[in-house]
Amino acid sequence: MSIDHIAIAVDDLEEAAKTYSEALGVDSVEYETVESEGVRVAIIRMENGRIELMQPTGDNSPIKKFLERRGPGLHHMALATPDIDGEVERMRGSGVRFLGEVRPGSEGTRVTFVHPKSLCGVLAELCMHPED
Amino acid sequence: MSIDHIAIAVDDLEEAAKTYSEALGVDSVEYETVESEGVRVAIIRMENGRIELMQPTGDNSPIKKFLERRGPGLHHMALATPDIDGEVERMRGSGVRFLGEVRPGSEGTRVTFVHPKSLCGVLAELCMHPED
Repeated sequence: MSIDHIAIAVDDLEEAAKTYSEALGVDSVEYETVESEGVRVAIIRMENGRIELMQPTGDNSPIKKFLERRGPGLHHMALATPDIDGEVERMRGSGVRFLGEVRPGSEGTRVTFVHPKSLCGVLAELCMHPED
Repeated sequence: MSIDHIAIAVDDLEEAAKTYSEALGVDSVEYETVESEGVRVAIIRMENGRIELMQPTGDNSPIKKFLERRGPGLHHMALATPDIDGEVERMRGSGVRFLGEVRPGSEGTRVTFVHPKSLCGVLAELCMHPED
């Protein structure tokens, strides 16, 4: 498995994207909306992965609740695997719990989330890219 | 810049290392103490970076305070650069604030930390490896 991206919850996506691109010296930021997860995302590409800034799309977004509870900051880490179904099966066999089944994510990926209780309080996305 | 590692605060380092290595299917975990930052670290190597689990070494460790306030979970992200002095100078010129000067970190690295106020609530380590 490899580190795919680091996801950060923010209040104002355009302002956060400007802050990050200036601080990190990055020229271009891509935007995408993932309706199924209730977020609009600004993608900052690093050499070996991405930083994804996330703003809730509505009041029912889990990101909205996170922001109300903890304020902006680190939200989850995402790990990429070439075989998400096999990985989920192996992890379930080790007692790992998941939040929902494997489902379509952004950019043609397939994703699911590991329950924070299974990783010492850390929400982890598992994802598989279409080219894998 | 590239993603170097994701750092996670935990209460019990051995238990957390067992949890992570089983969940992620990783065979070996390396341990290291970084006295200057008040942490003992378990390093889990991924294909393109590391996950670092951190336990405070004493009551004055900043990680101890983090755990008391928020419980175990994502603590900071670390970005690697081949020129940390140049990067810090460029970032300061963009108004980015730092927590302390560039100093020795683990494994011969040189490190400093970006103030969370400069990155939307995210604590970010900047690091440079000795081979760079």
